[in-house]
Amino acid sequence: MTNRIKEFIADNLPKIENELYSLVQCIKAPEQLKESMLYSLKAGGKRIRPLFVLAVCDLFQNKQQEAFTVGAAVEMIHTYSLIHDDLPSMDNDDMRRGKPTNHIVFGEALATLAGDALNTLSFGILARMENVPSNQRVELINLLSIASGAEGMVGGQVLDIDGESRQLNLPELEHVHINKTGAILRFSIESGAVLSNASEEERAALVEYAHHIGLAFQIQDDILDIVATSEELGKTAGKDEKSNKSTYPALLTLEGAKQKLEEHYHFAIEALERVEKDTSLLKEFAQYIVHRNN
Amino acid sequence: MTNRIKEFIADNLPKIENELYSLVQCIKAPEQLKESMLYSLKAGGKRIRPLFVLAVCDLFQNKQQEAFTVGAAVEMIHTYSLIHDDLPSMDNDDMRRGKPTNHIVFGEALATLAGDALNTLSFGILARMENVPSNQRVELINLLSIASGAEGMVGGQVLDIDGESRQLNLPELEHVHINKTGAILRFSIESGAVLSNASEEERAALVEYAHHIGLAFQIQDDILDIVATSEELGKTAGKDEKSNKSTYPALLTLEGAKQKLEEHYHFAIEALERVEKDTSLLKEFAQYIVHRNN
Repeated sequence: MTNRIKEFIADNLPKIENELYSLVQCIKAPEQLKESMLYSLKAGGKRIRPLFVLAVCDLFQNKQQEAFTVGAAVEMIHTYSLIHDDLPSMDNDDMRRGKPTNHIVFGEALATLAGDALNTLSFGILARMENVPSNQRVELINLLSIASGAEGMVGGQVLDIDGESRQLNLPELEHVHINKTGAILRFSIESGAVLSNASEEERAALVEYAHHIGLAFQIQDDILDIVATSEELGKTAGKDEKSNKSTYPALLTLEGAKQKLEEHYHFAIEALERVEKDTSLLKEFAQYIVHRNN
Repeated sequence: MTNRIKEFIADNLPKIENELYSLVQCIKAPEQLKESMLYSLKAGGKRIRPLFVLAVCDLFQNKQQEAFTVGAAVEMIHTYSLIHDDLPSMDNDDMRRGKPTNHIVFGEALATLAGDALNTLSFGILARMENVPSNQRVELINLLSIASGAEGMVGGQVLDIDGESRQLNLPELEHVHINKTGAILRFSIESGAVLSNASEEERAALVEYAHHIGLAFQIQDDILDIVATSEELGKTAGKDEKSNKSTYPALLTLEGAKQKLEEHYHFAIEALERVEKDTSLLKEFAQYIVHRNN
């Protein structure tokens, strides 16, 4: 990780988390529900999605406070998806980021409802961003709904479950990841462009960057499942291979997956060349994603 | 049911259901996910919530097509909440409206995801109502998020689960229902007022009407669980008493619950007197809710 990225994260992480937690703490809701929502929000994670919203705003020298709100919305969506994914009827995971999963602590019913509430809240907080023009709020809500719903993340999750029972080919596997993890990452980057009134060309270039970063992110995830330890990952390593899951290394060998990762990294950087601004932070971010070890 | 209500329903029900189904059919998502979403949307139900959106628009002689879209959004939220409520970890219901519940047909994982996707889609379709000004769309999204999330329906569901382990008192029981079922009914009515540019006074009166109708609706639900047959209800009757659930009849006796129902019906009608328009349709609706037998 470069010093600039380290500094960028150190500067913004506390503000991201502060915004995220306050947006839940201030709602009037049963205490055990708020506790369950906050438990998973506070369970850590790299906050890559909110950091991307901020990094894109940074590119346009856009310092507006609402970038943190949009970042909180996308982190809520990400967190709800993890809570539901971990349920016994889905991935049946007991541990996440080194801690017991939500349903282990709060029970399945409350975990399901905490996920539902985070999903719903993310749209509410976007709707309430008073300093953002209504048409921009509507655009962000529309993009988030597409990215996180049946046409994006949830659809990808369905395809992923489907892929557990048979070996997917490479286009099918890409399709899963473009939806399951890519769509939300794309929203993180595109929302920064919307908030910053980026031109159509700039936005298209950033969306292409997002596309390749999303795939690179997932390939690195698959690689880490093989090469990293459970301790480094905060979850059980080697689970993909045991469960016969369709992964990039399974389809392409570990070496082939690493090569694919480099290709997407390269295309992501290339897309940034079309933005006539100082894109060095986003380039360093791409490198951080590709070379992360957890 | 009066002839006018019958006619109003006969006129609008096909359009409501057509809008509801097309909004799902047109999305690009895995077929099994769309099937699961459509299965529960098509499982029937009285469509009371969309009918309320339309009845309020009718009051203002507002014929805009988007009332059906808002109605579809609220019916999606209602349907997702039923899918999740029926899950084994929640109410564990095998039958709903005389048909096997979603998870019985599609499995728990897909049922959870279909619910998630409907929740998310409802916000997307509100955001995409091109003929409604952005500021109105934002207002509707904000209201729906509050009504359906931790501060409304989901919060009420948490309180309801809590109430299964102990006897609630009357204010606690009211609080459950104001959130669990009342908030969404209120949204149905308030959204019609927003779409129709109602004055503040009109809107406040309609919200008060909604408050009492919501409680009346729930009390009648509790009463029907005792006096109606399973066949009439399309679900297991007498379940509340068997599960020792906190209900109005359990707290107030059956007679006391019927009296409470009449009180709320009366207050609902009274609130409508403050709207200087022909509120007869909404009055007849209140009567229909209170005297329905399923």
